[in-house]
Amino acid sequence: MSTPVGPLDASVVPRFAGVRTFARLPLVDDVESVDVAVLGAPFDGGTTFRAGARFGPAAVRESSVLLRSFNPNIGIAPFEAAQVADAGDAFGNPVDIVAAHEAIRSSAAGLIATGAGVIGIGGDHSVSLPLVSAAAERHGPLGLVQLDAHTDTWDAYFGSKLTHGTMFRRAIESGVIDPDRSVQIGLRGSLYSGDDEAANHRLGFRTLTAREFDHDAAIEMVRRQATGSIYLTVDIDVLDPAFAPGTGTPEVGGLTTRELVALLVGIGEELGPRLVGADVVEVSPPYDPTGITALAGANVAYHLVSMLAANR
Amino acid sequence: MSTPVGPLDASVVPRFAGVRTFARLPLVDDVESVDVAVLGAPFDGGTTFRAGARFGPAAVRESSVLLRSFNPNIGIAPFEAAQVADAGDAFGNPVDIVAAHEAIRSSAAGLIATGAGVIGIGGDHSVSLPLVSAAAERHGPLGLVQLDAHTDTWDAYFGSKLTHGTMFRRAIESGVIDPDRSVQIGLRGSLYSGDDEAANHRLGFRTLTAREFDHDAAIEMVRRQATGSIYLTVDIDVLDPAFAPGTGTPEVGGLTTRELVALLVGIGEELGPRLVGADVVEVSPPYDPTGITALAGANVAYHLVSMLAANR
Amino acid sequence: MSTPVGPLDASVVPRFAGVRTFARLPLVDDVESVDVAVLGAPFDGGTTFRAGARFGPAAVRESSVLLRSFNPNIGIAPFEAAQVADAGDAFGNPVDIVAAHEAIRSSAAGLIATGAGVIGIGGDHSVSLPLVSAAAERHGPLGLVQLDAHTDTWDAYFGSKLTHGTMFRRAIESGVIDPDRSVQIGLRGSLYSGDDEAANHRLGFRTLTAREFDHDAAIEMVRRQATGSIYLTVDIDVLDPAFAPGTGTPEVGGLTTRELVALLVGIGEELGPRLVGADVVEVSPPYDPTGITALAGANVAYHLVSMLAANR
Amino acid sequence: MSTPVGPLDASVVPRFAGVRTFARLPLVDDVESVDVAVLGAPFDGGTTFRAGARFGPAAVRESSVLLRSFNPNIGIAPFEAAQVADAGDAFGNPVDIVAAHEAIRSSAAGLIATGAGVIGIGGDHSVSLPLVSAAAERHGPLGLVQLDAHTDTWDAYFGSKLTHGTMFRRAIESGVIDPDRSVQIGLRGSLYSGDDEAANHRLGFRTLTAREFDHDAAIEMVRRQATGSIYLTVDIDVLDPAFAPGTGTPEVGGLTTRELVALLVGIGEELGPRLVGADVVEVSPPYDPTGITALAGANVAYHLVSMLAANR
Amino acid sequence: MSTPVGPLDASVVPRFAGVRTFARLPLVDDVESVDVAVLGAPFDGGTTFRAGARFGPAAVRESSVLLRSFNPNIGIAPFEAAQVADAGDAFGNPVDIVAAHEAIRSSAAGLIATGAGVIGIGGDHSVSLPLVSAAAERHGPLGLVQLDAHTDTWDAYFGSKLTHGTMFRRAIESGVIDPDRSVQIGLRGSLYSGDDEAANHRLGFRTLTAREFDHDAAIEMVRRQATGSIYLTVDIDVLDPAFAPGTGTPEVGGLTTRELVALLVGIGEELGPRLVGADVVEVSPPYDPTGITALAGANVAYHLVSMLAANR
Amino acid sequence: MSTPVGPLDASVVPRFAGVRTFARLPLVDDVESVDVAVLGAPFDGGTTFRAGARFGPAAVRESSVLLRSFNPNIGIAPFEAAQVADAGDAFGNPVDIVAAHEAIRSSAAGLIATGAGVIGIGGDHSVSLPLVSAAAERHGPLGLVQLDAHTDTWDAYFGSKLTHGTMFRRAIESGVIDPDRSVQIGLRGSLYSGDDEAANHRLGFRTLTAREFDHDAAIEMVRRQATGSIYLTVDIDVLDPAFAPGTGTPEVGGLTTRELVALLVGIGEELGPRLVGADVVEVSPPYDPTGITALAGANVAYHLVSMLAANR
Repeated sequence: MSTPVGPLDASVVPRFAGVRTFARLPLVDDVESVDVAVLGAPFDGGTTFRAGARFGPAAVRESSVLLRSFNPNIGIAPFEAAQVADAGDAFGNPVDIVAAHEAIRSSAAGLIATGAGVIGIGGDHSVSLPLVSAAAERHGPLGLVQLDAHTDTWDAYFGSKLTHGTMFRRAIESGVIDPDRSVQIGLRGSLYSGDDEAANHRLGFRTLTAREFDHDAAIEMVRRQATGSIYLTVDIDVLDPAFAPGTGTPEVGGLTTRELVALLVGIGEELGPRLVGADVVEVSPPYDPTGITALAGANVAYHLVSMLAANR
Repeated sequence: MSTPVGPLDASVVPRFAGVRTFARLPLVDDVESVDVAVLGAPFDGGTTFRAGARFGPAAVRESSVLLRSFNPNIGIAPFEAAQVADAGDAFGNPVDIVAAHEAIRSSAAGLIATGAGVIGIGGDHSVSLPLVSAAAERHGPLGLVQLDAHTDTWDAYFGSKLTHGTMFRRAIESGVIDPDRSVQIGLRGSLYSGDDEAANHRLGFRTLTAREFDHDAAIEMVRRQATGSIYLTVDIDVLDPAFAPGTGTPEVGGLTTRELVALLVGIGEELGPRLVGADVVEVSPPYDPTGITALAGANVAYHLVSMLAANR
Repeated sequence: MSTPVGPLDASVVPRFAGVRTFARLPLVDDVESVDVAVLGAPFDGGTTFRAGARFGPAAVRESSVLLRSFNPNIGIAPFEAAQVADAGDAFGNPVDIVAAHEAIRSSAAGLIATGAGVIGIGGDHSVSLPLVSAAAERHGPLGLVQLDAHTDTWDAYFGSKLTHGTMFRRAIESGVIDPDRSVQIGLRGSLYSGDDEAANHRLGFRTLTAREFDHDAAIEMVRRQATGSIYLTVDIDVLDPAFAPGTGTPEVGGLTTRELVALLVGIGEELGPRLVGADVVEVSPPYDPTGITALAGANVAYHLVSMLAANR
Repeated sequence: MSTPVGPLDASVVPRFAGVRTFARLPLVDDVESVDVAVLGAPFDGGTTFRAGARFGPAAVRESSVLLRSFNPNIGIAPFEAAQVADAGDAFGNPVDIVAAHEAIRSSAAGLIATGAGVIGIGGDHSVSLPLVSAAAERHGPLGLVQLDAHTDTWDAYFGSKLTHGTMFRRAIESGVIDPDRSVQIGLRGSLYSGDDEAANHRLGFRTLTAREFDHDAAIEMVRRQATGSIYLTVDIDVLDPAFAPGTGTPEVGGLTTRELVALLVGIGEELGPRLVGADVVEVSPPYDPTGITALAGANVAYHLVSMLAANR
Repeated sequence: MSTPVGPLDASVVPRFAGVRTFARLPLVDDVESVDVAVLGAPFDGGTTFRAGARFGPAAVRESSVLLRSFNPNIGIAPFEAAQVADAGDAFGNPVDIVAAHEAIRSSAAGLIATGAGVIGIGGDHSVSLPLVSAAAERHGPLGLVQLDAHTDTWDAYFGSKLTHGTMFRRAIESGVIDPDRSVQIGLRGSLYSGDDEAANHRLGFRTLTAREFDHDAAIEMVRRQATGSIYLTVDIDVLDPAFAPGTGTPEVGGLTTRELVALLVGIGEELGPRLVGADVVEVSPPYDPTGITALAGANVAYHLVSMLAANR
Repeated sequence: MSTPVGPLDASVVPRFAGVRTFARLPLVDDVESVDVAVLGAPFDGGTTFRAGARFGPAAVRESSVLLRSFNPNIGIAPFEAAQVADAGDAFGNPVDIVAAHEAIRSSAAGLIATGAGVIGIGGDHSVSLPLVSAAAERHGPLGLVQLDAHTDTWDAYFGSKLTHGTMFRRAIESGVIDPDRSVQIGLRGSLYSGDDEAANHRLGFRTLTAREFDHDAAIEMVRRQATGSIYLTVDIDVLDPAFAPGTGTPEVGGLTTRELVALLVGIGEELGPRLVGADVVEVSPPYDPTGITALAGANVAYHLVSMLAANR
């Protein structure tokens, strides 16, 4: 491996200067090869309540200028340990969810084919379906570690099978995700019926609600359940609305960013090289006037990148 | 006609009290028959840039509590002259534009079948297609008076024929709109190509750009071109972003609300009973922190209601 | 009991559609009888610092569209267990606190007379006085469980005996509240004098400050002190400003929504059918640009409704 | 007259530094005598829709740091031509309109008694009643030049005779204002009934609506009608919501700031020393996230100060 | 000239997708040669009141995604007529104005040396000094057409000679600008002394204040005064705060965007190839919650680019 | 000591009334002598990312109107225990960091010379350098207790030695701070290199990161390390962005206000009269639309004042 091309140095180039790539990294086309690619998926056509996550990748990039080179939580300088690059956005027809998903899957698959790990930036949570599908094409059926307020395993909304609340049921049906190796952490909020929790468990998931949340219990659940190759998806609404107001379906009673960062670090230690892909989704800038949701999203992405880089 | 049931009296019930219906009017189901129905169309799945207009009807209703009983610009007490009622929202699958449009068309047609005139509240501008289609089912092909920054007559976006930038070409193709009796006022902004204007004219429209805007010229154009039965559509982006920041595709250099209100009054006088339906669209609350766009939308709707009521 | 008429189904009708009633429930006038009535009290004329809570009921209704049918924290589908309905707003003269309070008391009393339990939505905290008074008319002197940053038992502001900081002293004086069966949880912030705490205790209240807050201690205090029939009042400022910026008198160092929801659930289990009425107050939309305060308010109201419904 | 004590020099002390007095002027107590006093009236208990104007004086002071020493529109350095000072706020019971008005009247009268002219900063428009009353105590019945979207001459709201929509009828009844020497400019918006305009005219006012607005016609109307000693009141809602979103009762179709400043200058030239007092009201900071309404208010106050100073 | 590489096609790639370059154009390094370079100057260390313009280039780029290929006001497809590219940001020490200016001058000079015309995006107005200096190095002393609320020709602030209110006096002193061929349009606001206007005129400028503004008079003034090679600078505060709230020193009574766009078009026609460089400055995103200021800035930049492209 | 002149009584004068001094206290010039002076330092020219803290003192004063007379956390009525007064703002050239720092140092030294303790209100964190320098002039080299997300001990930014990220290295070099008696609590966020932490420790600091944060451990570290006379500096970014979004360099994973208040109380108890000065910095109002950051800043300042007052 040649020496990775790193980001702009913030002690030389002020953080507010320069065209916004993730963490001010080079674009994929400007480096020889890529170990970890950050891929935007600016699509929110699967949203059932508040739209806006289509601007998520741009806002996460804007906030990511605050990121620096060394991640003390993981003890790694990710941009030195691996060649990380911004792969731009996978774009697709914003008014046709099938076409949009295919465009995202195709972009991700292209990057994966070059040997890169992909960190997706949503977009609404439906974009995890093409992202995890692309990863499973290479790695086979994947266990899912899902940090989220909602299960996203409902069957249909308004008669539609493809939305940001149903895509993980689709992923199970298509064999992309193996629910018996999957966990969901942070679930909360009112439900459509008293059977929702049981139905979700019948699919195979192990769950830890926000009410029950405990760091060690969460890590233990990941250790026992999430065997084999794993895809990690972080819906920013796993955070409490105080920490992430800018999201499509906020639910009170969520995690703090301190809890989330520690959880990510712990999961990363647990998974090691079994982590094959990840995303952070549902940052919705129109509902984020202070920008703290995008900042949280950028920090999540930074830790996801660090986790993949640590395995190179 | 029995005496119309009017709105709550703001000198008795404070404006900030009560469940929000348009202008605090009764719901359609709570009155015997309806002359003018205000119908929400909370759909923005046809949006090509910023979403959010799905919350337009709710925000317009919230702002409409400021409306009072007498419209001095038109010299009418619309809620006494006719039974006006809030018909709620025509809802449809938010992630399937064809199904959503059919739900809107069906709701509007149902109201029109009872003899009511319908004032639509968008939603993105694509909702005008089912709304004008429902009106044309009863009245035959309609001339269109379109107040808008954009022609919305492009052929396709991202390969999609049905978006908020293409629906009036569809309406022409299906014979719902007669472009030779149609005018567009307030056009401006950069274009996709130097042929855009000519292509739009070839379809049959007469146009008055915002640069050329003059009240008398606009009224004269309506008088000459917009013969027969007419549908009036107001994209709130005909206003300058200073007056309507909360919209999906803002363009600088637009009209003021003083100009728009005067224009509506003049058009109403010109059309008289030839006006058979109307809408106001593209109010996007997530981009409207001060609420002035929703307030403008509520005032536009109030004038549209007044114009229909004046013809009863 | 006939089968309750429930809310609109969000998997059929998108949450952003429809006229805003609480949780998209029917209005009181549209159902045969009501077990639990949600009553808005849009009055903030008792405010000593920032006004705006007059728009609280509208904002809570707008946020309540996110609520679903099943409350997993309490294990109940409240809208199936009981007929819940939106009773609209009790309106009164916004510039005359005596007249406004009487209008609220009268509305609540009318609902209670039909056998309904009432959940009030403020408005400033002064509206708890007429609400608790109406409840006491039926149930006799009530113990008070007050979740709040402030005691609201000062004697007078600016020479006025009736404000949102003094009404519980008035309620004690009129015998509506029995302070010896009352507790206050979440108190904090600077005080007018070193005697404030002692004076409040001399009235009879037991208190648990935010500094001392501990879930089990709070529940234990409720168990010991809050005997007999109880009214539960939640000032949204019991939450930290990070969780509830949109309120009239924010104080740093408050509870999180996770703590508050757990506290409500625990109090509900403790009180059972001894809970005869409740309210959530001081949501102030002009200071809530992200809407998270209204969302918290809607969730509090949902739990209060669930608690009353569970006792039917 | 001794040399007036002027404001801090912005080329020496940065504008963002220092305790906020109006235009960074000295307080009344810190100068020997005062020619023009700027008096805050932070009361909004007369508001019928959106409150918040109680924070108007603070926001106007904050914005006023942008004001400089020389007013080129009037050709005067007002703080050199006269001793101008900030008289702080007239405070009163915020939940008792009668007591609050008396506190304001008394403060203004005290300043007037020393020979000062008073420029009031609201507060809701009801504060003009005590302010104009204090002026009339010295100068006798006054003609009123009212720049406003609303007449504020309704009889009662919710049975209350004293609100921000009725106070000028009260002022006429008490003989403080002579309607036959009074004009209203900028009126617009929907009305409670078709008789509102006529009823207002029957009181004696001459009016120029925003629809009819023309600078020369406005000045001519002032010249003909507003004879004798005059009080000038500027409701910031005379501006369009694009220019003044932060106000209690915004109405579309209003004036621009360019029109308003020119109008003030023209009125000042016309009135000369016949102008005996003035105010600017209804700046409501909670609805003014960009601060442009407060900035407009500060500029209006600056021109009012300049007009009084020019007559010294 | 080879066929210019144009921007992404918004009918294929949604506008919300992709890394933000100006108008989604290629970067300078990705094209063979450049005719017009858009250069960010994210520096606001010369600001005397509100900072934030350091984020101006990023916000203008974000808003510029709304721009399309054909400019109907000028009748040109600028990205086809010339190779336009984004040159990124000229960065410099944000806490050392001399070093920062030198970095900007050097970047601009480097681009100019390749034959490109430069359109600068500020940054506070002080960045015009290095930008115009770089242009003058090639073209000799330049006339200045300045659209601005302020003259920016004061001598010093707080003893500093180099600020955003003094730089054009420095430019005159260094011979970069020839004031006798310079005009200022849109001036307004209170002044430091009664001599400010005269002092400015003594420097040589011809001025047209916002009060006096008339399109034809402005164009005539440019025609008569602005002879020879010209630099055009647009301070976004030439617009009224209703149209551009997000700026450092807003002044009421400014131009509308309709007036400004027409003025730019007229000036462009008048200057033709005599225009050698231009900038738009003082867009301050922290004060621009609705983004309309950045949108105005992007449209100004688009017209400036079109004007330079038209001369290729 | 004469009886201290206290603040306005909020039960008599509404909190929204009156010219804004800190906690509505008298100005220094209006009292005979001062025990504790609150001094604004509205300078942010040392900022490396987002500016705006220049408006911090004004926003903290505005929020401080919510503060009352008795501090129950410390058990003191600080304004009775000591004469506390607002010393206004130390102003300096906003575009020259050396001159600005000297102005701040000089103002603070002047107050200290009269025997007062000084509580500084920033401004960016660079203002702590002149403030602590002034304190050290009187008390000798000081230990530092720093509550902060960042060490602020880097050597240089962009070649500048004097910024808000480097000033404590300068303070060590000049002998003002004794690092061996200094602690830093709340550190977190990504770093420039893997050696940052070690380099900081080599300077002498003991640190407790936010990840490791524990109240008792923090107090114990202060007890062991922070011997002798101590200066306490609170960068508001020690709080999580959910609690303090309005700051220049937010980092996720920070403290809550409940933790911070308890920490301040504990530190105060530990230090007692060894605390000789303190400040709270980096409140940046343009990024604080809900005002909760300024509210937190006001509460921190109130506790700092209480701590100094308790030692009188």
